[in-house]
Amino acid sequence: MKPIQVGLLGIGTVGSGTFEVLRRNQAEIERRAGRGIAITMVADLDVARAQSIVGPDVQVVNDARAVIANSEIDIVIELIGGYGIAKALVLEAIAAGKHVVTANKALLAVHGTEIFAAAHAKGVMVAFEAAVAGGIPIIKALREGLTANRIEWVAGIINGTTNFILSEMRDKGLDFDVVLKEAQRLGYAEQLGYRIKLLGITKRTAQGVELRVHPCLIPAKRLIANVEGAMNAVLVQGDAVGSTLYYGKGAGSEPTASAVIADLVDITRLHTADPLHRVPHLAFQPDAMSDLQVLPMSEVVTSYYLRLRVADEAGVLARVTGLLAEAGISIDAVLQREADQVGGEGATSTDLIILTHSTREGEMNAVLADMQALPSVLAPIVRIRKEELN
Amino acid sequence: MKPIQVGLLGIGTVGSGTFEVLRRNQAEIERRAGRGIAITMVADLDVARAQSIVGPDVQVVNDARAVIANSEIDIVIELIGGYGIAKALVLEAIAAGKHVVTANKALLAVHGTEIFAAAHAKGVMVAFEAAVAGGIPIIKALREGLTANRIEWVAGIINGTTNFILSEMRDKGLDFDVVLKEAQRLGYAEQLGYRIKLLGITKRTAQGVELRVHPCLIPAKRLIANVEGAMNAVLVQGDAVGSTLYYGKGAGSEPTASAVIADLVDITRLHTADPLHRVPHLAFQPDAMSDLQVLPMSEVVTSYYLRLRVADEAGVLARVTGLLAEAGISIDAVLQREADQVGGEGATSTDLIILTHSTREGEMNAVLADMQALPSVLAPIVRIRKEELN
Repeated sequence: MKPIQVGLLGIGTVGSGTFEVLRRNQAEIERRAGRGIAITMVADLDVARAQSIVGPDVQVVNDARAVIANSEIDIVIELIGGYGIAKALVLEAIAAGKHVVTANKALLAVHGTEIFAAAHAKGVMVAFEAAVAGGIPIIKALREGLTANRIEWVAGIINGTTNFILSEMRDKGLDFDVVLKEAQRLGYAEQLGYRIKLLGITKRTAQGVELRVHPCLIPAKRLIANVEGAMNAVLVQGDAVGSTLYYGKGAGSEPTASAVIADLVDITRLHTADPLHRVPHLAFQPDAMSDLQVLPMSEVVTSYYLRLRVADEAGVLARVTGLLAEAGISIDAVLQREADQVGGEGATSTDLIILTHSTREGEMNAVLADMQALPSVLAPIVRIRKEELN
Repeated sequence: MKPIQVGLLGIGTVGSGTFEVLRRNQAEIERRAGRGIAITMVADLDVARAQSIVGPDVQVVNDARAVIANSEIDIVIELIGGYGIAKALVLEAIAAGKHVVTANKALLAVHGTEIFAAAHAKGVMVAFEAAVAGGIPIIKALREGLTANRIEWVAGIINGTTNFILSEMRDKGLDFDVVLKEAQRLGYAEQLGYRIKLLGITKRTAQGVELRVHPCLIPAKRLIANVEGAMNAVLVQGDAVGSTLYYGKGAGSEPTASAVIADLVDITRLHTADPLHRVPHLAFQPDAMSDLQVLPMSEVVTSYYLRLRVADEAGVLARVTGLLAEAGISIDAVLQREADQVGGEGATSTDLIILTHSTREGEMNAVLADMQALPSVLAPIVRIRKEELN
């Protein structure tokens, strides 16, 4: 059987990785897919550089529309990025009856609904494993491997300390030294058995769906708390399977290419299936989607780590915890540092660490405003959300 | 469209979990699959108990062959276990043109080749996600998610300390107290930055394929070293994606049911595809399988942790390390305990811990025989294989 013909739009880091892995593992992939898969045409603005990557046997053009117009091409891979020209080209490829593979999370986040509807109407597939968590086959796990489950929540590590520090710097306008000092103070949280990770979280509740990304304290004993460096991990809670976790490189040329090629093979396989029986783009059939409300952050329910720099004087703890009690927020643990252990700022102030039980964020915001107004509270209160992930 | 009709052979723990999850998440699953999936007939020797589980609307028989003979049934789930009657029934179901889902790892380990050949000849699918690592979608990840990769090795945690203790008891005929003492002595290894896990390992080498299951020291900083209790995890090394890890419950009623139902949905989806384009049973097309040699254990290359109970006298370390040097086995680390720290057995003996670099197991076996024969070596040498997993 003739190899399935693939056109590549944009041959940067991921594109050249895809070309290289397809070439290196050509025999292995054909033995799996039952059919050859060949990139036969590439569009890139830098034609000379692209030609040097793919060699003389592959046609290189500087006009992406020439790839889409080529009737020999079965699948178009979009690796241009962004949601300007990329959106137009994906929609044109769909209109031309091409299946599409994309690693473009921005495009799908902003225009996914329109793109998937166009693909459904035309009877083609838009595959996007590479757009989420790089080489980890998390879309396949969620859409197929866990298909028996009501997914209750998903928590993903996008990065570790680095992203936390970067996000603190951005959100608070702090410089690196200040943020590093705060990260070191989080040693308090590690005494208490927690680690900090930057998590993306979605959770299904009776009131709607939580969608949030923020630094988060999680129990050190959870496997996901031990994910370090640039590695990604996604923890999924299903009602039947319980917790499952998927871990791997979240970026990079060949890890992302691994996901792009998995999509190429899936399309090679499924394009012969009745379109109604293909894996639906968003896990559910287009006529069976729910339109769940996204909860405002004030409605999100979590527990909290609070760090207050307070005057070292009688009654402070009672005033602070009194405010929590009035709001009905119960306390899990309190840690008050000896004043002389704080150092560097004299013995007139100390750190007070409070771990709370779960509460609505709106309630916590109101209490924090009252706490911050106490004369004994000497500096901006640090508040970090805490998730047990069980 | 009429629901796809499923017949269930054996309604024990996994069977009742499958029935319950299919019933509870019926709407969710149909919204995903695009078609209803219904268990309409059950065979079990205990008809009354089976009928009490599935209720009056499902036909229960005590003869599995009545399910296979029912022309309305599209898919047969085999949950009987073992490889006696289960093998006959699976082959009969295939011969009757039914697709088969099984959680039976023993059956596939022993008769997989025959069963997959029969299914291929008949053009039906045999799906077995539930036979490997319970609810973790590892077969899907290996066959589809990582399809772009040459898989270099796979290491799976089947269980933690419990299985190590059990296997020591079984292999060495030791009683629990002795084994527990050895497990505590492994504290030496944890000082050195390792943890012990019972691993199943397969590795592709230029000489053939390693296939082995044994307790193993792995670096504590690897994510898989932090998998505890009854959880399973599978670490896969692919040439493009690098390391990916899959973690979840390896057993239990609903976690295993999650995998069984994922297979039902896959079959519902793929039975409309050209049979040549379905996911091949063993990841590669039947006419494109390699017949790789399984290496004998003596050819396996690993590093080692050795613990020797030796006489506390001059020259012992030189004699022991001399034997390793003569065999060309280089040493990574040596830890000699002070004699008075060992305790309980007087000050005339001590523990000598050696970590080696990689060597062929045959070489190590020969050196260990010579070491064991040294008069200064007072007890059976403890030898544990060590894997860096990077």
